[in-house]
Amino acid sequence: MKKSDVDYTLYLCTDRDLMRADTVEDAVRQALLGGVTMVQLREKNCSAKEFFETAQRVKKITDQAGVPLIINDRVDIALAVDADGVHVGQSDIPAAEARRLLGPDKIIGVSARTVEQARKAETDGADYLGVGAMFVTGTKQDAKVTSKEELKRIRAAVAIPIVAIGGIKADNVEELKETGIDGVAVVSAVIAAENIASAAEELAGCVKELKEA
Amino acid sequence: MKKSDVDYTLYLCTDRDLMRADTVEDAVRQALLGGVTMVQLREKNCSAKEFFETAQRVKKITDQAGVPLIINDRVDIALAVDADGVHVGQSDIPAAEARRLLGPDKIIGVSARTVEQARKAETDGADYLGVGAMFVTGTKQDAKVTSKEELKRIRAAVAIPIVAIGGIKADNVEELKETGIDGVAVVSAVIAAENIASAAEELAGCVKELKEA
Ligand code: NI
Repeated sequence: MKKSDVDYTLYLCTDRDLMRADTVEDAVRQALLGGVTMVQLREKNCSAKEFFETAQRVKKITDQAGVPLIINDRVDIALAVDADGVHVGQSDIPAAEARRLLGPDKIIGVSARTVEQARKAETDGADYLGVGAMFVTGTKQDAKVTSKEELKRIRAAVAIPIVAIGGIKADNVEELKETGIDGVAVVSAVIAAENIASAAEELAGCVKELKEA
Repeated sequence: MKKSDVDYTLYLCTDRDLMRADTVEDAVRQALLGGVTMVQLREKNCSAKEFFETAQRVKKITDQAGVPLIINDRVDIALAVDADGVHVGQSDIPAAEARRLLGPDKIIGVSARTVEQARKAETDGADYLGVGAMFVTGTKQDAKVTSKEELKRIRAAVAIPIVAIGGIKADNVEELKETGIDGVAVVSAVIAAENIASAAEELAGCVKELKEA
């Protein structure tokens, strides 16, 4: 997958604890049917071995769908399964180190809440930013909410794609119009939905509208 | 550091939560003065960023002492700081993957409790085994105790060096005589000692006696 081909429109982050599907693989398969354009595997509460094995299995599914697989935090697991990239937060392995380990062709995403973090991430070699939390979320109750104004300032400060994250659902995504985002990242709005495929389809439609507006 | 030069006699595993020293670096410095021959950085309760930054600082100290630095579990952090190797447990990234990522020259250690695990680790490219817990330990209250007989069976089953671990102190280390071990790994016996250097020195003396016996 060439980096320039990456479509950030609907970026799914997995969460084993929130999902109704039997396995992460099932959830991802259904989400891809609904039109998810990118998948991040996030496994905070399992062993590194289980994370690695799940990543191996999910990689086959995302490859078949032609959708990039991003690994949260663990650069070694990304390397081991030849994932398309990693996503690092401000407390994870530094983006510059991730770039050194992964080389120029892999996708590196960085979580940023401020213009300063956004600029540093871009300098350190990030390919995209995850900005948020945009809304109060069930997943991270204590996450600070990023204002729409800060999102716009970040958009103006960097050239790389921006994915908004945090509490985004079909009924609030329109609040993000005119912010210049390239896509939205969702966890519970898709992964915890009764019908994952239709939840993804609805959201993908909303985000496309937003981007065209 | 050439692998063949590695001295497994007294292998220190760090534990931020158990130590009296102000910083992991201080504890490691003192332990090296006492004669620790190998250091494993184990940081279960801190962020990957902090683990990476600590590893960078400790690497300078172990390099100066000419002692190998092993990183627990995180192959990416080992790569990022150019550590001498990694140690993986049965729930961590598989040893064969670690070998693939690290190449032939880095040290890979694997925790093994049974002959089967020991043989598999050797086949997968492990350079040494950590076998235990040999005694009930304050660090891992729930860890299963490995019998001296099982340790001897493992010794007979593989050719790679064996480091015994788990609850080992100056007053019980002699129970491990005639097991053919290459060294002992300690956490609290050194890291939680009032005088880290002298605790290390006493233990190193005991293990040398044991190996010569
Ligand atoms: Ni003695």
